[in-house]
Amino acid sequence: MKQEADYRAQLEQLSLEDKATLLTGANFWNTAKVSDVNEILLSDGPSGIRKQTEGGDALGLTGSVETIAFPCLALIASTFDKDLLRKYGEYLGQIAKAEKVNVLLGPGMNIKRSPLAGRNFEYLSEDPFLTAELAIQYINGVESQGIGTSPKHFAANNRENERFTSSSNIQPRALHEIYLSAFKRVVEEAQPATIMNSYNKVNHVLVVENEYLLTDLLRSQWNYDGLVVSDWGAVKDRVKSLRAGLDLEMPGQPDYSIPQVVEAVRSGKLDEALVDRSVLRLLKLIDKYTLEGEAPNYNKDNYHEFARTIAAQSIVLLQNEDNILPLKDESSKAVIGAFAKHPRYQAGGSSKVNAYKVVTPFDALKEVYGDFAYADGYEFENLDANQQLIDEAVEAAKGKDEVILFAGFPENVESEGFDKTSIVLPDNQVALIDAIAKVNPNIVVVLQNGSVVATPWRHQVKGLVETYLAGEAVGEATADVLSGKVNPSGKLAETFPERIQDTPSYLTFNRSTEEENYMEGIFVGYRYYATKDLPVAFPFGHGLSYTDFEYTDSKVNVDNDKDQIQIDVTVKNVGSVQGAEVVQVYLQNRASNIEMAARELKAFERVELEAGESKTVSLVIPFERLKWYNPQTDLWQIDNGDYTVHIGSSVNDIHTHHDFEITSIDEPPIQLSLDSSLKDIIDLQDTLSKEIDEFGFDEMIHKMTSEPNLRVLAEPAPIRMLVMFGLKLSDLVKFVEKCNVRLKTGE
Amino acid sequence: MKQEADYRAQLEQLSLEDKATLLTGANFWNTAKVSDVNEILLSDGPSGIRKQTEGGDALGLTGSVETIAFPCLALIASTFDKDLLRKYGEYLGQIAKAEKVNVLLGPGMNIKRSPLAGRNFEYLSEDPFLTAELAIQYINGVESQGIGTSPKHFAANNRENERFTSSSNIQPRALHEIYLSAFKRVVEEAQPATIMNSYNKVNHVLVVENEYLLTDLLRSQWNYDGLVVSDWGAVKDRVKSLRAGLDLEMPGQPDYSIPQVVEAVRSGKLDEALVDRSVLRLLKLIDKYTLEGEAPNYNKDNYHEFARTIAAQSIVLLQNEDNILPLKDESSKAVIGAFAKHPRYQAGGSSKVNAYKVVTPFDALKEVYGDFAYADGYEFENLDANQQLIDEAVEAAKGKDEVILFAGFPENVESEGFDKTSIVLPDNQVALIDAIAKVNPNIVVVLQNGSVVATPWRHQVKGLVETYLAGEAVGEATADVLSGKVNPSGKLAETFPERIQDTPSYLTFNRSTEEENYMEGIFVGYRYYATKDLPVAFPFGHGLSYTDFEYTDSKVNVDNDKDQIQIDVTVKNVGSVQGAEVVQVYLQNRASNIEMAARELKAFERVELEAGESKTVSLVIPFERLKWYNPQTDLWQIDNGDYTVHIGSSVNDIHTHHDFEITSIDEPPIQLSLDSSLKDIIDLQDTLSKEIDEFGFDEMIHKMTSEPNLRVLAEPAPIRMLVMFGLKLSDLVKFVEKCNVRLKTGE
Repeated sequence: MKQEADYRAQLEQLSLEDKATLLTGANFWNTAKVSDVNEILLSDGPSGIRKQTEGGDALGLTGSVETIAFPCLALIASTFDKDLLRKYGEYLGQIAKAEKVNVLLGPGMNIKRSPLAGRNFEYLSEDPFLTAELAIQYINGVESQGIGTSPKHFAANNRENERFTSSSNIQPRALHEIYLSAFKRVVEEAQPATIMNSYNKVNHVLVVENEYLLTDLLRSQWNYDGLVVSDWGAVKDRVKSLRAGLDLEMPGQPDYSIPQVVEAVRSGKLDEALVDRSVLRLLKLIDKYTLEGEAPNYNKDNYHEFARTIAAQSIVLLQNEDNILPLKDESSKAVIGAFAKHPRYQAGGSSKVNAYKVVTPFDALKEVYGDFAYADGYEFENLDANQQLIDEAVEAAKGKDEVILFAGFPENVESEGFDKTSIVLPDNQVALIDAIAKVNPNIVVVLQNGSVVATPWRHQVKGLVETYLAGEAVGEATADVLSGKVNPSGKLAETFPERIQDTPSYLTFNRSTEEENYMEGIFVGYRYYATKDLPVAFPFGHGLSYTDFEYTDSKVNVDNDKDQIQIDVTVKNVGSVQGAEVVQVYLQNRASNIEMAARELKAFERVELEAGESKTVSLVIPFERLKWYNPQTDLWQIDNGDYTVHIGSSVNDIHTHHDFEITSIDEPPIQLSLDSSLKDIIDLQDTLSKEIDEFGFDEMIHKMTSEPNLRVLAEPAPIRMLVMFGLKLSDLVKFVEKCNVRLKTGE
Repeated sequence: MKQEADYRAQLEQLSLEDKATLLTGANFWNTAKVSDVNEILLSDGPSGIRKQTEGGDALGLTGSVETIAFPCLALIASTFDKDLLRKYGEYLGQIAKAEKVNVLLGPGMNIKRSPLAGRNFEYLSEDPFLTAELAIQYINGVESQGIGTSPKHFAANNRENERFTSSSNIQPRALHEIYLSAFKRVVEEAQPATIMNSYNKVNHVLVVENEYLLTDLLRSQWNYDGLVVSDWGAVKDRVKSLRAGLDLEMPGQPDYSIPQVVEAVRSGKLDEALVDRSVLRLLKLIDKYTLEGEAPNYNKDNYHEFARTIAAQSIVLLQNEDNILPLKDESSKAVIGAFAKHPRYQAGGSSKVNAYKVVTPFDALKEVYGDFAYADGYEFENLDANQQLIDEAVEAAKGKDEVILFAGFPENVESEGFDKTSIVLPDNQVALIDAIAKVNPNIVVVLQNGSVVATPWRHQVKGLVETYLAGEAVGEATADVLSGKVNPSGKLAETFPERIQDTPSYLTFNRSTEEENYMEGIFVGYRYYATKDLPVAFPFGHGLSYTDFEYTDSKVNVDNDKDQIQIDVTVKNVGSVQGAEVVQVYLQNRASNIEMAARELKAFERVELEAGESKTVSLVIPFERLKWYNPQTDLWQIDNGDYTVHIGSSVNDIHTHHDFEITSIDEPPIQLSLDSSLKDIIDLQDTLSKEIDEFGFDEMIHKMTSEPNLRVLAEPAPIRMLVMFGLKLSDLVKFVEKCNVRLKTGE
């Protein structure tokens, strides 16, 4: 294996022009080939390999090789299953290797700040901890196959409208705790080959030119030593971006960027060491990720089967009144909705792949149940209610034992490149549900969509199944769940609110073309609903099963030797079928002197249980995970004090909670000031008895605290306010000085 | 009258010690008497004169002269009546003069950010425009009598807990538009004698030491030339505060502050010009506000009558089902609730005066109706339900035609100095309402409280009357409204939400002892509820009458000559009794490229109408009032574009709306950049046809816009992103340059 010195030697061989050339993509997907430096190929992901067949653009408008279309990450995240994410990454890596792709451009890791954000389908969660836990596994899986990854989009790219120019204006605490923390963990725990920057500005500076993000944080604080690659077309000023820490420009603008960089170095505007820094990173990357030997073959049918497995395991059963699901074998059925025959199984934009074999729900259900009634019910292009289609659907549904109604967002209302303006289903679908419900109460709605749907009609139906964009095996996976062949165990990785107005970013989201103000701060997703005690349609972490689980014997142990909290809880499958449950642990920080969300996910574990089986699940929260970002000190901080853990099946379905206390954090010795409160003095009465006596403070304490009405005012006030009761500021200054000597020396 | 030169001459006569002495209060309430400079007396307000009889402290613990206790400003603001506020100021000024008080410490002007804030009773509104309009009148009224005022507390003091040390962390737009704008208008339009600073920090700097607030804004931008006085005990470091622009320290710490100032000047740490600057302001103040001749007498009974009038006119009729009010003369009645005999008519803290003559609701109702049943129903000290008292009350209420039930916040849960933790009535009162409602549906609840009350029990009662803290004539004013002698016309100057969790500041209010983060930004009060379309108990501006009003013939005219919008609307009293209505005009800004509240009060007018009478009300909105504070430029800005005015009887009870357009604002000429969108180019196609041709841009425009799916992505994207479709950045740079020449020269 090459050493640092080898790369340096290789660098020495390169001219300035060579180096500038290397840092500028040769074309859309390849780096430049310069002297003995190999080119490498980067290809879109993150839910399959979009290796373009020729020339190509970033928006998926030209052809790509045929491959497996896996479910979108929004669905896969719903497994809360780290092992599955790892395996998923391995499969993706294997396909990439077979297609001779060196770096796969994924996973998508942005936080789902608003359900309207157009690219949510590609991202994991509204929660940074869940995002990190799953992304780390995805990355490790892909990279275990010798294929590079590119976690994206770094950072704070949470809307599509004006994504190239708008500024994400975020206060430090939210920036670090919500929007950067998953990237930080991915860098520290998985060291991905590359990080892809985002198009937008953060606090008015383009990310590609943002030295704080690309260098101060990513390199100096997080110790990243991979390559930062631009999102396609993000570079505006090559010299500025290079200086800030953006290594590789994609796609390259060789005729423009190369001379600029060369000229900037020659004229002294750009330090050549910064060019070398980026080239070294690229040389290491190329060396590490160059594929040797023949590309292996892969059996597409096997991978299609995995796409089916992963989708079925991820699908979320939101509602199941009267146990309408699983469907009965012998019942009469109607399948309604054009999505059944024309499923939306992947999204538009850079993540769209040329699918190998799409199986529709219609065909898959036919395979299981034989014949059933069917009607389209609506169109995709015209979203107004079509009475004729509705009438046909009503006819089909009448008198049937079960109606399976497919609904969701058509591609023209949801895609990369623009944000939605509503989370309400199109008019024609809402009208359809309403019309069917009037003739048949036994409806199961199956949703296909990239992100959150409002469900005001959910009380008109019995079953509700969220399949997101389920990949090319959408039909088989849906049928597996509806039939009970697979017992659903997916849990929502994002909150389904009642109305868009209830969402935390509603007041600011897309209100300005230039300024996106993140006013809700850290209160993103369930952090907001839980803290405001606001009803939602379906909470974060929610997902039903065909069996039931019982939680018992929970206990919490603060382990000061290992600096961690251990939580044990026994989960029993008390139903009659095998199933899986995701145990979730939410923290409530009551210790820190700053606003805190009422709930923060800090641990989770998926557990599979046979009917009647029970297992003890052990979860660990390292103290490190209790830290919050203090904007006054710019440091992550953990506080002594009281905390509570809530253990449950969703953020709103808490089975038990335990209080615990952290006492082991070193704190600086107490020193008083004029801003110390009377209460502070009273607390130190024993230690400071001499000084209190000397300055006649005992009398003041007595006077201030003997009357309840006065006490409530006086105790929290700084002692300098005692001038209001005749004490002199000059005496107070002396008193504080003497007390501090005593507190410091202890004598 | 003295000239500037005279004051300068007077200043020349003073030694440095004299000057330092003058800027340090001699005692609790007086400035120092130095050589020929008079002392002046400052006394607490703002709802009466709290002139202390001896020594004294700031917290109202020692005695003060007997005088009229007027209603708190929270109640008076509910008149929305500028004339009444002016008159109120005049009366206060007359009493001050009679008591030889030179400066009255009021009005309270802080914005009611949270209903929990302990001092809300003393403030006017959650809306800065209403606050400004009313405060200007109050100030003009007082000062017309030769008495100085002290609008307070400048600035952003919106909680009581840790008010001496906590930092109000506010983004610039909210700071200027919400928290400073009423102070700005008061300074610019009323030039009050003094401004009182607040205790807290703003963005981590103590207000007394905050040069940005005290000098850059107040002096340089707003041109204030009165005196800045510290809130009592706010000064921590006299030299720092003097440097920042805090003129007068109250109460003085002569032995501490004077030597400090003298030493700082002598050692060169403090420029003597800054001392002179403050002394000059003080000399002018003393000269202007020194009272000549004998103090006039005032007839307290007349002033008590005014306190009755103003209270009765301000009381808000929140609910009146089945027209239960006004009370019938001949009906049998029960009066329930200890507040009837022991009314809470003013608040604890510095605003508390030694009342002249308190008339209880019990006595006033007896005067009108003769005998009725009575029961206490609850205690004030123990807030748990007292079953015996409840049983007695139920007995009293049984079978009566009408039950008048007094409820509210006892003083021990609401006062200056601490914040409330809940807006729910005490348990014993909620239990009482519940118990009475079970035996008698004809309940009128009369509220006594300093700020917002949650009313989840309102559906159990018919009438609901908000009297706040109504001053010493509380009984008579309440009886006037209940009996119909006065037809209520008060309108809420703050929103009554359903739950405290719904309030905009809920996530951060009092969550930290040190950091109060104003995360809700400009979305304070009704701005939040209206924009989020969130149901409330009673909206801002709401208040019923014993008659009804009809709105017709509204019209809006944009007057570009006068730079104003004129709104005319005809209001008719369509009921059978005389009454008054407050016409409210809310703006919806659809023009500006930034988040905006869905409603902003921009004009209002109270109109009195005999039964059957109609009047045309004319309201004017100067363009100036459409401005918003742009944090990027630090300037107030008005934009061309589309606006809507909503005309109504409350923010939620809109009778009509009109769209209008502003077109007269000068805008800079268009210049393109790489960040200009394809849409921008298309809009300029005619002007730039030559350049578009030359660079082959016409073909690109055609390609990008001919397919709808592509068009939606391409049009808003910056033209630099066209590199994704094969254009070269180098060509785009040249294209932009040439276009800009054309756009600038027009050739």
